[in-house]
Amino acid sequence: MFSCVGYGAASATAPLKPLTFERRECGPDDVQIDITHCGVCHSDIHTVRSEWGESLYPCVPGHEIIGRVVKTGAAVTRFKVGDCVGVGCMVDSCRHCDSCTAGLEQYCDANPVWTYNSPDAAFPKEGAYTFGGYSRSIVVTEHFVLKVPETLDPAAAAPLLCAGITTWSPLAHWKVGKGHKVGVVGLGGLGHMAVKFAVALGAEVTLFTTSPSKVEDGKRLGAHRVVISKNAEAMAAESNRFDFILDAVSADHDVNAYLALLRQDGHMVLVGLPEKPMSVGAFALVGKRRSLAGSAIGGIKETQEMLDFCGEHNITADIEMIRMDQINEAYERVLRSDVKYRFVIDMESLPKAV
Amino acid sequence: MFSCVGYGAASATAPLKPLTFERRECGPDDVQIDITHCGVCHSDIHTVRSEWGESLYPCVPGHEIIGRVVKTGAAVTRFKVGDCVGVGCMVDSCRHCDSCTAGLEQYCDANPVWTYNSPDAAFPKEGAYTFGGYSRSIVVTEHFVLKVPETLDPAAAAPLLCAGITTWSPLAHWKVGKGHKVGVVGLGGLGHMAVKFAVALGAEVTLFTTSPSKVEDGKRLGAHRVVISKNAEAMAAESNRFDFILDAVSADHDVNAYLALLRQDGHMVLVGLPEKPMSVGAFALVGKRRSLAGSAIGGIKETQEMLDFCGEHNITADIEMIRMDQINEAYERVLRSDVKYRFVIDMESLPKAV
Repeated sequence: MFSCVGYGAASATAPLKPLTFERRECGPDDVQIDITHCGVCHSDIHTVRSEWGESLYPCVPGHEIIGRVVKTGAAVTRFKVGDCVGVGCMVDSCRHCDSCTAGLEQYCDANPVWTYNSPDAAFPKEGAYTFGGYSRSIVVTEHFVLKVPETLDPAAAAPLLCAGITTWSPLAHWKVGKGHKVGVVGLGGLGHMAVKFAVALGAEVTLFTTSPSKVEDGKRLGAHRVVISKNAEAMAAESNRFDFILDAVSADHDVNAYLALLRQDGHMVLVGLPEKPMSVGAFALVGKRRSLAGSAIGGIKETQEMLDFCGEHNITADIEMIRMDQINEAYERVLRSDVKYRFVIDMESLPKAV
Repeated sequence: MFSCVGYGAASATAPLKPLTFERRECGPDDVQIDITHCGVCHSDIHTVRSEWGESLYPCVPGHEIIGRVVKTGAAVTRFKVGDCVGVGCMVDSCRHCDSCTAGLEQYCDANPVWTYNSPDAAFPKEGAYTFGGYSRSIVVTEHFVLKVPETLDPAAAAPLLCAGITTWSPLAHWKVGKGHKVGVVGLGGLGHMAVKFAVALGAEVTLFTTSPSKVEDGKRLGAHRVVISKNAEAMAAESNRFDFILDAVSADHDVNAYLALLRQDGHMVLVGLPEKPMSVGAFALVGKRRSLAGSAIGGIKETQEMLDFCGEHNITADIEMIRMDQINEAYERVLRSDVKYRFVIDMESLPKAV
């Protein structure tokens, strides 16, 4: 074990502050990474504040991690010291259930070991739990470490590890590509990645946003069309048009308004998690054999495929860099949707010692 | 045109009574059918009583039609006088939109011509609308006429034209078969057909019912397992188990309780039409990439495939035969779910003249 500096919260109501905690030593299958950048995801806030059930404290969030390999275990074959690597939302899983063997560890029957605030059997102390990427370094078993193309800006690549894969996975699973009419609902951290990916995959992309102020930005990101979802007439004109709609909105909203825009056999996929149950009319689904599905992040194999695709197409997130000590202020801005489109922490700004 | 005897309602609040109306003459592409049997579907009641919007009166319902060909137009090639044939929920469609050319006329962009109470451009009078199968005969364009295997009991085959195809179509579309764990929710006209089909397709079938009284009947129909859906403990034991769940319940009910029973990538398909919007939790969908879809009746091609399958496997509905003059009483029993599992009208009982 070694002591690691990070930034975390002591309770659900405490601000994040510098702290130290213990990491396990780099074992034979492990990769030890010095973290250079970490994205700021809304899930970080939910967890730090115990909004998804009681969290464990101190809580060190962060699961959009980019860094450099500084040590590899004897059995590690895919990485060497100096490699640019990424770690996303998971650091382990059971590895033998149907989901894991299919490369979809996020759906592991036993639940994956999440990158932070998750029971950590790999740590040599009882009751241990994981600490995330708002920290100096991390030790992760090789299977859950991703290669990051050296051509990508590492800061702007960080959000690919959660916002990126969360939107890539459903686009890939439902085989979105050339000839498809794709809708993206909501232009935030997830939505802006969905627009970039769907455009790069060759689809005709329509962005739905409530904010007229986002029209220009949507087009700059590549959307071929932008529809203001508050305009009932504009929405009616889109009926029965879309093969696929990716709904990236976590706030409560009317999904029926979008289901009606799907063609026969069209799919609408939720990647956001509205807290309240959604109200869904049966007629909208039955009338055209439409489906409403959900999708959670993505497996390790497809995360690597996404990163490779990003390398080939030079795709990264639009980010705003912050210092570690700006994190509490950044959280307030995330809650106000005042970020285009992801905060990324420069880990150089983390104190060397606490 | 010729005069046809039928049974219909003069208004949304009137009982069904004998009446006459006009049918078009058998044109070059038409098949004229003497109706021997007609099933009683809950949609008949909704339409007769203007519960799905204002109906046209007099209203003659019935879209589970079996009969014998008595005349064929000069261009008709697939039918000859004497053939046992069926007509389902549709008697025409635009025939050139994507859905129609894919053999899925039920999703026709211009809407199909429904078998009853639907604008009827083929009838040589302005403002004409269709009259259904509670009648002596019907004239239908060849494409919408189905061959019914002579080996099947024609009375028990009638419900295949709506209850049958409505449950067959999703099972076929989602490729349900050997090795699949399938749930069927609700044991009524639709549910009992779903159980028979899913069993014949080789799936392991679990029936979900609120009524302990239906356990035995579910097993008699072929269900391998029956779960009482009011038993929370029994329901919890079914979590993450099913590849496919067919929800045949039209009453308001909790779909989340069933979504939680799907495995990763499992599909739940609605064929009933609850009036109120359903409450759907995003976590249930996102957590395992589950989907909630809908499906409406079925196309002509797949209806023929279903009938052929029924011929090979000797599958028909469980029915209770009634006389035409028992229809109003039968409607009240349908509303009380007091039928196992479909009423079929013996058209011999229709008055010869009014």
